[in-house]
Amino acid sequence: MATIAANEDIRRRIRTIPDFPKPGIQFRDITTLLLDGEGLSLTVERMLEQVEGPVDLVAGIEARGFVFAPALALALGAGVLLIRKDGKLPGATIAEDYALEYGTDRITIHADACAPGANVLLVDDLIATGGTARAAVRLLRKAGATVRQAAFVIDLPDLGGAAALRQDNISVTSLVAFEGD
Amino acid sequence: MATIAANEDIRRRIRTIPDFPKPGIQFRDITTLLLDGEGLSLTVERMLEQVEGPVDLVAGIEARGFVFAPALALALGAGVLLIRKDGKLPGATIAEDYALEYGTDRITIHADACAPGANVLLVDDLIATGGTARAAVRLLRKAGATVRQAAFVIDLPDLGGAAALRQDNISVTSLVAFEGD
Repeated sequence: MATIAANEDIRRRIRTIPDFPKPGIQFRDITTLLLDGEGLSLTVERMLEQVEGPVDLVAGIEARGFVFAPALALALGAGVLLIRKDGKLPGATIAEDYALEYGTDRITIHADACAPGANVLLVDDLIATGGTARAAVRLLRKAGATVRQAAFVIDLPDLGGAAALRQDNISVTSLVAFEGD
Repeated sequence: MATIAANEDIRRRIRTIPDFPKPGIQFRDITTLLLDGEGLSLTVERMLEQVEGPVDLVAGIEARGFVFAPALALALGAGVLLIRKDGKLPGATIAEDYALEYGTDRITIHADACAPGANVLLVDDLIATGGTARAAVRLLRKAGATVRQAAFVIDLPDLGGAAALRQDNISVTSLVAFEGD
């Protein structure tokens, strides 16, 4: 796993907080990475190195995806598409639901956010089970977008989200993996 | 108002949606500005031109402040401090409450996010009544930060938030003002 070793400078800036949001969960906290200007800069630079092909829009998933999507978009000369929780967007929206441990949750985009065929790069801070990310891909494709790649800072491979996204024909990149979660 | 005229290229990319989130409110929607790569780039560039003095950390207010804070921080060589809604941060936090039309709301930061005396630039997309922004200033100062400037894309001056922040000894900058709101 050469990539992971090379990103040790990013990994060591991520703080692990046990038992959040509930007992048994090891929360991988990127706030410590972001507080460090060099950490932020390295993270964006390494994410950019992994981007393949043309990108018209970088889609960030609320809320931590919003931290990385605009930085990538600026460097790529692309726009930013905000994928928001239900009820936050003021215009006409399209929505997609996804399963939570108990119940479901919903993400939305503006119905007119995306020109048909636009190349969209999906971005979030972390991929775990992939429930939100896969719903985001379905939502973007429903809007007519071409979605071929999703970029994350952190992958929790044991939870299977990256593998599931690859089944959806998404190229998945991440900078750091934490196993045993 | 020379600044506003000069930023007509930004203003025309902001969409106004009537009666959101409730009747009588004109919602100033920046999603259309962000979808346009040139709009995003111009916005960040103009915000940067207004930054005064040294900046150690750029603090973004959840969720739309997260869109601009990292882009400014990268250009300034600073870190990013996330100001989050209650219950979102995994570590020990400090909090500040502020009044809503009905009831109160709470914002938080990690208790160890900010070294004493750190120069913090506060960033959000819009300043209206200033309730959230003023609470953010109190919270950052409680953490020991030096906060002298707050940067917004949009000011709704009739709602008085920018004037109130100036009373708190904050230099307030914005790119576009919408009056009559």
